Amino acid sequence: MSFVDTLVADLAELRRCAPLVHNITNYVVMNSTANALLALGASPVMAHAREEVEDFAAMAGALVVNIGTLSPPWIDAMTAATLRAKEAGTPVVLDPVGAGATTLRTRAAETLLETGGVRVVRANASEILALASATAETKGVDAVHAVGDALAPAIAFAERSRAVACISGEVDHVVDGERQLTLRGGVPMMTRVTGMGCTATAVVGAFLAIQNDPLVAAAEGMAVMSAAGELAAEQARGPGTLQLAFLDALHTLGEEELRARVRVEA
Amino acid sequence: MSFVDTLVADLAELRRCAPLVHNITNYVVMNSTANALLALGASPVMAHAREEVEDFAAMAGALVVNIGTLSPPWIDAMTAATLRAKEAGTPVVLDPVGAGATTLRTRAAETLLETGGVRVVRANASEILALASATAETKGVDAVHAVGDALAPAIAFAERSRAVACISGEVDHVVDGERQLTLRGGVPMMTRVTGMGCTATAVVGAFLAIQNDPLVAAAEGMAVMSAAGELAAEQARGPGTLQLAFLDALHTLGEEELRARVRVEA
Amino acid sequence: MSFVDTLVADLAELRRCAPLVHNITNYVVMNSTANALLALGASPVMAHAREEVEDFAAMAGALVVNIGTLSPPWIDAMTAATLRAKEAGTPVVLDPVGAGATTLRTRAAETLLETGGVRVVRANASEILALASATAETKGVDAVHAVGDALAPAIAFAERSRAVACISGEVDHVVDGERQLTLRGGVPMMTRVTGMGCTATAVVGAFLAIQNDPLVAAAEGMAVMSAAGELAAEQARGPGTLQLAFLDALHTLGEEELRARVRVEA
Repeated sequence: MSFVDTLVADLAELRRCAPLVHNITNYVVMNSTANALLALGASPVMAHAREEVEDFAAMAGALVVNIGTLSPPWIDAMTAATLRAKEAGTPVVLDPVGAGATTLRTRAAETLLETGGVRVVRANASEILALASATAETKGVDAVHAVGDALAPAIAFAERSRAVACISGEVDHVVDGERQLTLRGGVPMMTRVTGMGCTATAVVGAFLAIQNDPLVAAAEGMAVMSAAGELAAEQARGPGTLQLAFLDALHTLGEEELRARVRVEA
Repeated sequence: MSFVDTLVADLAELRRCAPLVHNITNYVVMNSTANALLALGASPVMAHAREEVEDFAAMAGALVVNIGTLSPPWIDAMTAATLRAKEAGTPVVLDPVGAGATTLRTRAAETLLETGGVRVVRANASEILALASATAETKGVDAVHAVGDALAPAIAFAERSRAVACISGEVDHVVDGERQLTLRGGVPMMTRVTGMGCTATAVVGAFLAIQNDPLVAAAEGMAVMSAAGELAAEQARGPGTLQLAFLDALHTLGEEELRARVRVEA
Repeated sequence: MSFVDTLVADLAELRRCAPLVHNITNYVVMNSTANALLALGASPVMAHAREEVEDFAAMAGALVVNIGTLSPPWIDAMTAATLRAKEAGTPVVLDPVGAGATTLRTRAAETLLETGGVRVVRANASEILALASATAETKGVDAVHAVGDALAPAIAFAERSRAVACISGEVDHVVDGERQLTLRGGVPMMTRVTGMGCTATAVVGAFLAIQNDPLVAAAEGMAVMSAAGELAAEQARGPGTLQLAFLDALHTLGEEELRARVRVEA
């Protein structure tokens, strides 16, 4: 079975079973992430209280952890949820938003990785570099490094952390210690809509609930993002209309569009 | 005066006086709820700090309490605001998002109901069942029970709690201990936009600020949601564009559309 | 150089260097504010934890502080960030949302002003009156006073606080102790989209990162808001579509549209 065959089957399965995806994510993207998951066919829940995150992490099909608007009580809840997910066999995807920009963020990402529960890290090049080495500097939450510069460090990081690393940018690289997938697609204007990276992480989460191989699930999520972004760009007049057309595209995206657009190299 | 006559008059009055609607709601829907209330003609305020919720609850035309992204300090603020609203005569509508899914949520909803300040509970079938009996199970925040299965428990719940119960789904039922209104309308794609239920609760809140009978106010809110959803669906190509067209429709909705679309049975 | 010449040059410079704009803002508008800053060409970061706000305030081109959904830990973080910004030379714009409506909000705004770090206050007439005198009353977060009534108090306030006061409404006044700019434009439907005032504050923040004269930067932000709002209104069928068309317009807005639309009087 080719990658696209698997993707088509997994997307159909995702829409059939509407997996519960538990998100502990940032304030900025809660609404757009929930809408993207609903449009795709998943069933999102946003919950962050220490008192209930373990309940949701255990019952969910996947857990999405995103450190975009962090504070200490949220770090505690994220850590507890990730540990519970590990115990319950719930796959976890981490979005280390702004890792490298402040000590709080870098340390929080490291703490979450040290639980051993994270199966995929979805990040931009600067964030991957910050986690792969203590030396990279990030400006805010947008990447200042090229994707290519982060590839070798990402492979080393994946080997060490036993998590799949997924670097998104003008091309997307998905690597574990042994395998590498490269995806092309998407449109530059997606970087002018806030939270598109966070949405990608959540979409990867939805596929983790369906597909057991985290490398494949991560690539499936990125492929769907790019295809939906391209379809949306055909309708959009700017980043405002792109955002809405993107949700429409996630909802209507089918086998034909995926076969025509997904470009992956092993 | 028929129900639609009353609705037309109350919507005109709502737009004329732009009542202040105080929302203590979840992070996911704060933006979309505020936009819906503004589009309808109300004046929303979002405020959750223990230090100021009583001030707003006392001065507002209605208080909307939604437990979608709960944590203990918010439960304290919601409880204090509901008690102050009761004292000041401000009607309160409660949205028990995810009641039944976790103990934190079920208990929070029960605590709020025990204040005696809640006039309307607007929920999906699973949430109403969770409040009506301790045995129902919910998956995340989406309903897994049919509306019809929740009707008899909702009536019993309304009798016991002295709050109107409003169950939304493929049909909407609004009941108190004695009366029952059933509304038809809306479109299935509304379930693919996050927070449409939360928006319904806020719209019910806006009508509670105008209409003294909470059963009628709840039905008015649901009727407006359905009519606006149907109008929006005519413009939409998916859940993204539906969301925006829905806000446009709330703003432009007039007597003609309401008379053509609202279907209510006593 | 005329005001419009300066604006055209500063907007080009803003898009060229994509300044980091640090926002400590309210939950309702985080998403729409981030999207507006990205559409304009800036690089937004939202961060509110006491543990990292000083890091971002020091490295950012501007700091935006908005008290729309306030609580005591956030007031602490806002105060610390404003003090660090002052020390680091980062200009700060304050949006005192709901000042006058509750004691918590009025005092928080006063505390932030007392740091001496605030360069611009962007507010509606009621909020400016609340800060200028202890006697004005506000209903929720929407203005209940006319812009004209706030002009003389705003000038007195600007003299006393050494901050530029920017009152937005059907006309916009930007004043310091000596100078006054009046801008006309925009469309009434902008008041039916939540957070348009908050977006204006953030856009002023983006210009503060480029333009050293805070009076000019504030006027530039307001001019861009009005021009983008007018362009958006030509595409919109209601407040939902206005919101999206507004983001598109911020992205595409160029010299031609600015020269045709910006109307400023000294």
